Amino acid sequence: MTEAPVWIHDQQTSAAAALAGSECLFTIATIVNDGAQYEEMRRSFDAAGFAGDCEYLALDNREGNRFEAYGGIRTLLTRARGNYVIVCHQDIRLITDGRVQLLERLGELERLDPFWALAGNAGGTKQGLARRISDPHGENQRVGALPAVAQSLDENFILLKRAAMIAPSADLAGFHLYGTDLCLQARMRGHSAYVIDFHLRHLGRGRMGRDYYACLEALEDKYARLLQQGEIQTTCLTPVLTPSRWRLFVARLGRLRKKAKKLRIEREAQAAARED
Amino acid sequence: MTEAPVWIHDQQTSAAAALAGSECLFTIATIVNDGAQYEEMRRSFDAAGFAGDCEYLALDNREGNRFEAYGGIRTLLTRARGNYVIVCHQDIRLITDGRVQLLERLGELERLDPFWALAGNAGGTKQGLARRISDPHGENQRVGALPAVAQSLDENFILLKRAAMIAPSADLAGFHLYGTDLCLQARMRGHSAYVIDFHLRHLGRGRMGRDYYACLEALEDKYARLLQQGEIQTTCLTPVLTPSRWRLFVARLGRLRKKAKKLRIEREAQAAARED
Repeated sequence: MTEAPVWIHDQQTSAAAALAGSECLFTIATIVNDGAQYEEMRRSFDAAGFAGDCEYLALDNREGNRFEAYGGIRTLLTRARGNYVIVCHQDIRLITDGRVQLLERLGELERLDPFWALAGNAGGTKQGLARRISDPHGENQRVGALPAVAQSLDENFILLKRAAMIAPSADLAGFHLYGTDLCLQARMRGHSAYVIDFHLRHLGRGRMGRDYYACLEALEDKYARLLQQGEIQTTCLTPVLTPSRWRLFVARLGRLRKKAKKLRIEREAQAAARED
Repeated sequence: MTEAPVWIHDQQTSAAAALAGSECLFTIATIVNDGAQYEEMRRSFDAAGFAGDCEYLALDNREGNRFEAYGGIRTLLTRARGNYVIVCHQDIRLITDGRVQLLERLGELERLDPFWALAGNAGGTKQGLARRISDPHGENQRVGALPAVAQSLDENFILLKRAAMIAPSADLAGFHLYGTDLCLQARMRGHSAYVIDFHLRHLGRGRMGRDYYACLEALEDKYARLLQQGEIQTTCLTPVLTPSRWRLFVARLGRLRKKAKKLRIEREAQAAARED
């Protein structure tokens, strides 16, 4: 036979182990419709230490919107080689924090929760908003006890641990709320998302136009479909998908009764065989 | 600056485009606790054309269960280089169908549904079971109109399109029902799974011991938690997650009223300013 199998002897879940073998640590991925803005952003990353073992990927929207964000980010992720993929807006600038601070924060996350998959500088948590940012609303904002578990992440800066294989929904599109979708996808996979203490400047204000509401309702409609309860046919039994503890209890009782009946029939058949 | 950005000018969602640049077409990934069995499996793959641009990855459970399936497959996926990752049991044998037939079936799927992410030879569908297999229950079984959209896939043979970035849940473990979990994860991402006409032999019967029930209940418990409805705090609005059309309607009505109120206040402020 031509290929010898590669034997894997130990679990390599920790990012630390995954890092060791890689040549590319960071992919910085951006949807660009303004080349000059993007160059400024790149310059600030370069100055902050994101060079050498980094790659920059740019989706070219300079001559019109060839890419929307959900599909665009999926494309970026299939091309990315970095262990960490930073998906960010062209109008952010690294100012006080850089590569060293980011790696420190990620190391901290890894110790806290090896199943973290996403990290951002702003987002929603159960306790309300959390953020570490300078933007038109204020300089040097620091809200929430960071790192904070996030229900959603603001799209200005989102870092994905590539090994976790989280990606935006294939049945959503547009330029809004993909940070929320990514957090929901991470949660469904059993991973988590965090707002971390990584300070940068965002030049934009974030607008909520008609587009925003279209994305919001599409997101709600999608997850409404997913939350419908039902049964899953498998080659063995049928798991029941329901948020109701009561319906689960009834399903499991039914399974127990079926099992007991099967055992009784087997016992009776054996007894009949003995009597013959 | 050291790195020039890589500009991406066109969407590369089709598998055809993704295939072009890759040296490794298939990763064949297996959890192995019996080296001799595995060698037989590998020999049958080799004879069926899976050589050259293929890699074989084996999780080594020969000296005890170092790996369970969910985490093991996540590990395999982070190591895999193939465009297609076949996760299969050591006790399957390729017999009539091989590489040529598989590529034909995948091409067919791609034309039918570019968002397919998973393909197997047996599984559950809305219409009941579907399968294409020879196993201790019967030779040359052909059940269902294939390809058929699958709610679950049998674990003997599952192929993942790697670009879709579907992986098993990080909060489940064990040796059962990861095919069902993978299908659920694909559905949540907006991708689909299929039973295809790819005939092979499975030596095992599939057992449902105490382990199976533990995995079944863990799966149900996990998805019960996910199906809980709630609101998501974002940096802008709060999307509502609910299966209820009625609750969605009420939430959207509330948003409209809030928007109308904001507009009224703005208008009144403008009017007051004019009067001053």
